[in-house]
Amino acid sequence: MPDYKAPLRDMQFVINEVLESEKLHQTLSGYEEATEELMDAIVEEGAKFAENVLSPLNQSGDEEGCHWDDGVVTTPAGFPDAYQQYVENGWPALSASVESGGQGMPNLLSIVLSELTGTANWSWAMYPGLSLGAIETVQTHGDAEQKGKYLTHLVSGQWTGTMCLTESHCGSDLGLLRTKAEPQADGTYAISGTKIFISAGEHDMAENIVHIVLARLPDAPAGTKGISLFIVPKFKVNDDGSLGERNAVNCASIEKKMGIKASATCVLNFDGATGYLIGEPNRGLNCMFTFMNTARIGTAVQGLAHGQLSFQGALSYARERLAMRSLTGPKNEDGPADPIIVHPDVRRMLLTQKAFVEGSRALIYFLAQQGDIVDRGDEEAAKKADDLMGMLTPIGKAFVTETGFEVANHGVQIYGGHGFIREWGMEQIVRDARIAMLYEGTTGIQALDLLGRKVLGSGGQLLLEFTGLIDELCGGDVPPECVSLTETLQQYKGEWLDLSAKIGEAAMQNPDEAGGAAVDYLMYSGYITLAYFWARMAIVAQLKISGAGSDDDTQFYEAKLMTARFYYDRLLPRTAGHRETMLSGASNLMDMPEAMFDL
Amino acid sequence: MPDYKAPLRDMQFVINEVLESEKLHQTLSGYEEATEELMDAIVEEGAKFAENVLSPLNQSGDEEGCHWDDGVVTTPAGFPDAYQQYVENGWPALSASVESGGQGMPNLLSIVLSELTGTANWSWAMYPGLSLGAIETVQTHGDAEQKGKYLTHLVSGQWTGTMCLTESHCGSDLGLLRTKAEPQADGTYAISGTKIFISAGEHDMAENIVHIVLARLPDAPAGTKGISLFIVPKFKVNDDGSLGERNAVNCASIEKKMGIKASATCVLNFDGATGYLIGEPNRGLNCMFTFMNTARIGTAVQGLAHGQLSFQGALSYARERLAMRSLTGPKNEDGPADPIIVHPDVRRMLLTQKAFVEGSRALIYFLAQQGDIVDRGDEEAAKKADDLMGMLTPIGKAFVTETGFEVANHGVQIYGGHGFIREWGMEQIVRDARIAMLYEGTTGIQALDLLGRKVLGSGGQLLLEFTGLIDELCGGDVPPECVSLTETLQQYKGEWLDLSAKIGEAAMQNPDEAGGAAVDYLMYSGYITLAYFWARMAIVAQLKISGAGSDDDTQFYEAKLMTARFYYDRLLPRTAGHRETMLSGASNLMDMPEAMFDL
Repeated sequence: MPDYKAPLRDMQFVINEVLESEKLHQTLSGYEEATEELMDAIVEEGAKFAENVLSPLNQSGDEEGCHWDDGVVTTPAGFPDAYQQYVENGWPALSASVESGGQGMPNLLSIVLSELTGTANWSWAMYPGLSLGAIETVQTHGDAEQKGKYLTHLVSGQWTGTMCLTESHCGSDLGLLRTKAEPQADGTYAISGTKIFISAGEHDMAENIVHIVLARLPDAPAGTKGISLFIVPKFKVNDDGSLGERNAVNCASIEKKMGIKASATCVLNFDGATGYLIGEPNRGLNCMFTFMNTARIGTAVQGLAHGQLSFQGALSYARERLAMRSLTGPKNEDGPADPIIVHPDVRRMLLTQKAFVEGSRALIYFLAQQGDIVDRGDEEAAKKADDLMGMLTPIGKAFVTETGFEVANHGVQIYGGHGFIREWGMEQIVRDARIAMLYEGTTGIQALDLLGRKVLGSGGQLLLEFTGLIDELCGGDVPPECVSLTETLQQYKGEWLDLSAKIGEAAMQNPDEAGGAAVDYLMYSGYITLAYFWARMAIVAQLKISGAGSDDDTQFYEAKLMTARFYYDRLLPRTAGHRETMLSGASNLMDMPEAMFDL
Repeated sequence: MPDYKAPLRDMQFVINEVLESEKLHQTLSGYEEATEELMDAIVEEGAKFAENVLSPLNQSGDEEGCHWDDGVVTTPAGFPDAYQQYVENGWPALSASVESGGQGMPNLLSIVLSELTGTANWSWAMYPGLSLGAIETVQTHGDAEQKGKYLTHLVSGQWTGTMCLTESHCGSDLGLLRTKAEPQADGTYAISGTKIFISAGEHDMAENIVHIVLARLPDAPAGTKGISLFIVPKFKVNDDGSLGERNAVNCASIEKKMGIKASATCVLNFDGATGYLIGEPNRGLNCMFTFMNTARIGTAVQGLAHGQLSFQGALSYARERLAMRSLTGPKNEDGPADPIIVHPDVRRMLLTQKAFVEGSRALIYFLAQQGDIVDRGDEEAAKKADDLMGMLTPIGKAFVTETGFEVANHGVQIYGGHGFIREWGMEQIVRDARIAMLYEGTTGIQALDLLGRKVLGSGGQLLLEFTGLIDELCGGDVPPECVSLTETLQQYKGEWLDLSAKIGEAAMQNPDEAGGAAVDYLMYSGYITLAYFWARMAIVAQLKISGAGSDDDTQFYEAKLMTARFYYDRLLPRTAGHRETMLSGASNLMDMPEAMFDL
């Protein structure tokens, strides 16, 4: 397993130079203190924690996995201790609100922290990661008593949280869920049912776990409009805040999985557990929607994280491993062969990794920043940011995790046969990365959200909001060296708008046309979205080159420009296949009778 | 893990209707008995063995894995017994020559058998699979004594074989290998060195193992021209054929791997082990080349096998799992939701699986048949078949395993979160499939072979040999319903020739241009190659529809036509991205100084 070394220069490039966060924060009430200096310091501290404490537990965590014994889940050696340090350092509170005991830092920093911890050790990072949803739920929808009882402990990290949605017969289609909530005389509810795939549902890292549970009231309408939200603590909480008796929620088993083995994926049985209604009855799914974007961006980080780790491992191997001579003559004459980084195809894979990873970082940090504007910006800015998040979140979630999986596989490929061997750790990255295209809404679900709800559902407005940014960039101060990029980007933008109109027209006649085009549309849109961020980064880099303070800086900016060119030359053209595929229509999918699939 | 059910109808369609094997066999001396009836019977028997004996051991083999204890390797429960049955049924001898005790059946049947056993249980199939290389080596290059001592037992399956090539510092670049062979007074050689990644290098399934080892004689020239080939048996063989003393070759450990865990991947130490030179000194690599095509086609089967198994699992799940309603209205009104096969995106994934799997089957069986023509055809036919194999084998190996991995991942995706859980077996298919792009020459190595050695190395002749088949098909008896396919195919053929000429021209100036284009060129070529086989299958299907004997047959042929259309509409367009990427040239790969990759 490669030792993780945080790419601080690139992170700070995006935060400070591309997104100019300090300047923005001066305009967002409460974020004024988040200066470049403070942010750099926080990111550097986070990097140390990730590199020194979490990274060494990544491979051992995979080998050891979690263990279940009669309802008790034991995480791998070192996990609870690392969590304790994390809590003591105050990390869980980083971007929580000051009134709930948090440090009130921008969401952007929280996302950067999750990249740092998640790249070092994704399985470990799932435990504090799951708390974020619970915190947001209680903060947004809880009453004063609920906030008092649960929020402070969640924010401090003393307790962790979960989101209990999935049941064995329903994941994407939550309308089918069956868990029941019976009102009790004391105003609480008795929750009964079985939830599966509950990450961090049981563990030994914190003294209490606050489950947020979706369930149905007795008189609830069928489907998604009859789902309510409940707080179900593992240990009930006394009025003085101390822990009371054990609640009737038990971990029946944990799953054996392909990857993220150190993250406990639990089956939870609720046997008349005491639950507390949060928000309005039957409005549970709406409450969930309020932080769906955050959760999806959080999962997008996984594609970035696994991509980064795989790239680091592959690059160091490609510099050391000797095989064959360069086709243009020896580059390592004194050695028995050349390092494989001389070979064009190895470079193709490395640059594919680099271009997806750095492009995804820009997209994800941008999305996190939009979240901050939604929270703290003026009405107009918040509305625009919300539109951009609506448009770009499904792209971020699905495109970054799909390409992250590709990147992880390139890392294995660069190692050759050694990539398949556990010892090197490269195959673990592939196994860990695979889940990201499934949970928090599969790629197919994201694609329907993007094309159906966002683009077509807004009559194209959300798309235009983003292509407006493209126009702004391309019509702005573009150095001559970058004009070929922005001209290409403009062409793609036009094609994207045309294509969207065509698909929309076809979908009006037959909704299966949207369903049949959706995933290709998402991938197509993803390539153009990343092309926007690559053009934006290239322009910043080109403008900075003249003022670069050191040789190191100049080289950093030059590498950016070369990677941008690689992206435009060799990754962006993949749009062509997606475009033609979409335009072929849905009849080639729908005509075959179901019984003929296995003939 | 899905129960394997062999797709007999499709196998027989390719063997009998597309490739018209019986007719061909009448023209190949020694294969006259391989009639349709006999072949069908053999394939059906093989299917029973695979379904009933091997398939039930697939998931348990993965869970249990192999165990090493002080040099002794124990395979999972049931593996040795299944191998015993395989030997007793005479399967190892299927296509071995009659003079060495084989049944003398065409190589085509051997490939079909390896699909059957490999789909049911790839790890298990590795053990007999590795013997094939040893058999071919001894048969082609061994002297009479060596044949007498080793061949019969290998052919009967009483012993198994290995190929010992890789060392820890060299896999693709065998010129670097260090294992030594010291001549001894008795005419034998003392072999010393360590080989890694030796599949079936040690196990408990057969009483002896015949290692074919690459090593250097003391006076050997450096690099690939100084490699000789040796037989090193685990137990020495007495002159009367009985087993003698244990040889000095020991299994030092077995690898922990991502997948194919029930296949023992061994580190073998040769400590002055007794070896017998096979073939001429220093000509070892040339000897290996004689069956490199066979070995690579054998690995291509893995992409087909894992694809088939994943498709079967995904299809049955897509028919049963209920989630959401069809966008065009309920299809399962009495149920709580529709089966997910109604959703266009699920169909897109299933049809992608189906189109790659069935197209790959046609390509691989075609390649196996060309092998039979090389072996038994007249000189002109053999030359042409050899050219076609040279051209299509790297495509078969790399394209089929790359798309096989994609197919395996679609299978996981269709299961949603459940696909990530070990219990269902879908993730095992992904883990098992991952190795196929690495061993027996990575995708990158295949791509250099295709573009550098085959296409450019022949001055385009090998490519023209294959496009000649395309011309023949498109200029032949094409039913009107298939003309749109053949017209498209002809256009692609023209583009392929142009593109090859352009790349060739660029590579003349700078060999890195070939290296930089190679993998995209291979994938591009693969899509067109499969388009040829899809057009060929569609034409057969269309012509047969009028004479179809039963409704089932008509439906089978109609499904073929629909899948062909799907392939042309939705998979073939991926060529566009590969084409544009290649034409961007290699400077976007080569310009970045190595030190700038991690900036």
